[in-house]
Amino acid sequence: MARVYNFCSGPAMLPLEVLEEAGREMVDFNKTGMSIIESSHRGKAYDAIHNEAISNLRELLGLGDDYSILFIQGGASLQFAMIPMNLLGPGATADYINSGYWAGKALKEAKLIGKTAVAADCGKEIPTRVPRLAELKLTDGAAYVHITSNETISGAQWKEFPKTSAPLIADMSSDILSRPFNATDFAMIYAGAQKNLGPSGVAVVAIRKDLAGRAPAGIPTMLKYSTHIEENSLYNTPPCFSVYIITLVTRWLKKQGLENVCRTNREKAAKVYAAIDATGFYRGTALPEFRSDMNVTFRLPTEELEEKFVKESTKAGLNGLKGHRSVGGLRASIYNAFPMEGVDALVGFMKDFESRNG
Amino acid sequence: MARVYNFCSGPAMLPLEVLEEAGREMVDFNKTGMSIIESSHRGKAYDAIHNEAISNLRELLGLGDDYSILFIQGGASLQFAMIPMNLLGPGATADYINSGYWAGKALKEAKLIGKTAVAADCGKEIPTRVPRLAELKLTDGAAYVHITSNETISGAQWKEFPKTSAPLIADMSSDILSRPFNATDFAMIYAGAQKNLGPSGVAVVAIRKDLAGRAPAGIPTMLKYSTHIEENSLYNTPPCFSVYIITLVTRWLKKQGLENVCRTNREKAAKVYAAIDATGFYRGTALPEFRSDMNVTFRLPTEELEEKFVKESTKAGLNGLKGHRSVGGLRASIYNAFPMEGVDALVGFMKDFESRNG
Repeated sequence: MARVYNFCSGPAMLPLEVLEEAGREMVDFNKTGMSIIESSHRGKAYDAIHNEAISNLRELLGLGDDYSILFIQGGASLQFAMIPMNLLGPGATADYINSGYWAGKALKEAKLIGKTAVAADCGKEIPTRVPRLAELKLTDGAAYVHITSNETISGAQWKEFPKTSAPLIADMSSDILSRPFNATDFAMIYAGAQKNLGPSGVAVVAIRKDLAGRAPAGIPTMLKYSTHIEENSLYNTPPCFSVYIITLVTRWLKKQGLENVCRTNREKAAKVYAAIDATGFYRGTALPEFRSDMNVTFRLPTEELEEKFVKESTKAGLNGLKGHRSVGGLRASIYNAFPMEGVDALVGFMKDFESRNG
Repeated sequence: MARVYNFCSGPAMLPLEVLEEAGREMVDFNKTGMSIIESSHRGKAYDAIHNEAISNLRELLGLGDDYSILFIQGGASLQFAMIPMNLLGPGATADYINSGYWAGKALKEAKLIGKTAVAADCGKEIPTRVPRLAELKLTDGAAYVHITSNETISGAQWKEFPKTSAPLIADMSSDILSRPFNATDFAMIYAGAQKNLGPSGVAVVAIRKDLAGRAPAGIPTMLKYSTHIEENSLYNTPPCFSVYIITLVTRWLKKQGLENVCRTNREKAAKVYAAIDATGFYRGTALPEFRSDMNVTFRLPTEELEEKFVKESTKAGLNGLKGHRSVGGLRASIYNAFPMEGVDALVGFMKDFESRNG
């Protein structure tokens, strides 16, 4: 069996050893005589998996007991609504920093719920980028400040995070646990799992417990952070399989150490950017200082060549390099589990393609 | 490897052949060179799985194109809120039929959103039961009528469904596709997957398309049925693994035929009820005419004996027979995939236990 190199933006490649373990124990988990997906979410076997996922995430993020780690279904997209429903009371204003497609989606949902202000906006600039800290115009007494740590479509990433007096909330779906950072600077971090943490079907939410108390009365039980905090994400049946894979992936991350994971990620990204910058044939779409280590976006001289690049790279076992339909171009998503050999294969292909078409 | 007989109320036993197939192709799905949980939800491989799950469910439910089949995260518990958010406009009244714990949960969420009426209430009766059709006091011009087709905790099940002029909505989490029924009598059917359809992490929703148009403006995008209808449940990344297993389970159901599945389910339940009724030692908790074919609930002469029964049955490889913490007693959940041999093992154990303790 030949594994293809999958450059898709998510769901994305997972560590091979995680998949092999999940395959081996699909029928009989840990000698329980049943699959983890058949196990009661109130039983011992699943309980251990659930709580290990939480403690691994807590350790990797460096968060204490003043934060809850939650598993909530609906992905980051449901969080876009839950955040303002819980945290944006009447009369208050939430600051949103618009850095592109995903930040814009979060803002759009908040506008349905309450009052928002755009503290910086470079969502439509080309080359793509995220705001500089000096550009932020924050609202005094804002309910919270929302950022998107990495924009998967534009390929721009925050390299330094703002320090805000209002609670700082970040959508880290596409770069969570790809690099060390000070998580306690944030009141809340959330991430759809399907890029760096596991399969789709769950968002990981790390939330400072005091924040959850702000929710107005009357919002549905499943949409209140306090429900999930009080019930340790077991108010209703959790997405057990997704949590199980998160446990395996966080074990894998702990074994390597976040510093090493980060070093490898930077090395992988640097190789692709070097190939882009080597001649004038390829052109990176993000401003160099904000280039994402997770999603490398670039263009070719013509759209015809881009189409040819996608077609030929797919044949060469390099899958999913087509850029998002809203912007075109090429994109190589190289999350934590994406192997160095796949990057080398891409770089080799890029050189070869250029020599044939440049 | 010895498979245990898992009588838990859900997540529950799945067909062994489904688990084996999922295990075999966990690393390499269908020769794509990647796992289904690594596959893009916008790619060909997942697309085929997603649409097969929909068409299998449509065929098994006997629904035409006037209904959409949706996959929505958050389980039945999120549906409890989405239903009134979308369908219970200001000034309107929704009829809820209270048959027990789960019907009560649905009602509680609706009360947070709008005006409700209880069209029948036998939620606290003992022996447990669901209402008789003649007891229903329906509201003229109700926005909808909500029922819970099977109460997993009390072990009571609707044997005949009401015909209502208002749109009829059913939570079928614990008995969907366990028996043939006329699905077109319902405007909406929903079910958390983790009992009869697959793993946790997704609710299957079958909704008449015209109903979804009723949603008021301003509700969050992810919580609107119209979003999921328009995007074929691909507005955001769906819970791909759960949908994949639903595809495999519905293939298995189609292979057997719903009539045969139903006949086997009735035979399994009848065997356990016969063991209960054989002497005065065991006592069924549901009124005989409403006894559930999915969750067989019963008591022993004393709580001490019930505790002993749970302990000894677990040792004998019969897992999860303890009743719900809110009601005590014993419960044998025997969904579609629960094997006949497990029922025979339970009946054998019951006779033996009685002979030793009766």
